[in-house]
Amino acid sequence: MQLTKHTDYAIRVLIYLEKRYIEMQDGKNSLSTATDIASVFNISFNHLTKVVQHLGQAGFIETVRGKSGGVKLARSAHLINLGEVVQAMEKSLNPVNCAEPPCRLRSACLVKPILDKAMNAFIEELKKYTLADICIEENNDVWQLKLS
Amino acid sequence: MQLTKHTDYAIRVLIYLEKRYIEMQDGKNSLSTATDIASVFNISFNHLTKVVQHLGQAGFIETVRGKSGGVKLARSAHLINLGEVVQAMEKSLNPVNCAEPPCRLRSACLVKPILDKAMNAFIEELKKYTLADICIEENNDVWQLKLS
Repeated sequence: MQLTKHTDYAIRVLIYLEKRYIEMQDGKNSLSTATDIASVFNISFNHLTKVVQHLGQAGFIETVRGKSGGVKLARSAHLINLGEVVQAMEKSLNPVNCAEPPCRLRSACLVKPILDKAMNAFIEELKKYTLADICIEENNDVWQLKLS
Repeated sequence: MQLTKHTDYAIRVLIYLEKRYIEMQDGKNSLSTATDIASVFNISFNHLTKVVQHLGQAGFIETVRGKSGGVKLARSAHLINLGEVVQAMEKSLNPVNCAEPPCRLRSACLVKPILDKAMNAFIEELKKYTLADICIEENNDVWQLKLS
């Protein structure tokens, strides 16, 4: 059981954008392009574009159009909740698909509610953290990575 | 994020075997064959065989060889923990694969420990339950399904 690459990359994108924002506090343009981010993380441009699009639709990032356009966080990092990011980006958080193939236990299943509770515990743990918690400036090891 | 079909089917097999065991308390042979179980759940025989093999290797079920051979639970249902079943059957419980493609944040990542804690919360929730909890005889709806 693993998060999809889509969600994994979404988290990386958000970290990148927050780092970029912190770096550019001096007033320079803090917009990034999908090309930059795809290159930094060595992710296919097509895949990255879909991730960026989805993050935009979910309201985590916003796009500025134009010649020097790009994307940036739509709100402060401490308002971007990790649990909500995973909920928005994962195609399904249904721990099992009882319909494919249709399970004969389905009508009176006692397992599904337990699996749902477990998935809920997973999300609730993530909801304790925001993007700000994973982009602590003091963590020099992270910021010395020179992403840009 | 979803459990693999392999784990999903493993849980169904265990439920089937426990139901079979309860039904056969009168002393009749309570062994089941992979053919029977595959047919009841409409799962491919090849896939079911791999699941049964894996459940055997993990010590949850045992195989009795011979003409009237088959499989049965290796221990009482209340000693078969759901969390342990999922841990044994899932190929990976690593919430993300930081190595594919290698993530540049890897050396100083603050996300991975949080995702690991969330996955741990998922498993810990499941560990509160055993196979006996999901095979309650009093739950007539389940037992009226006439699996065999």
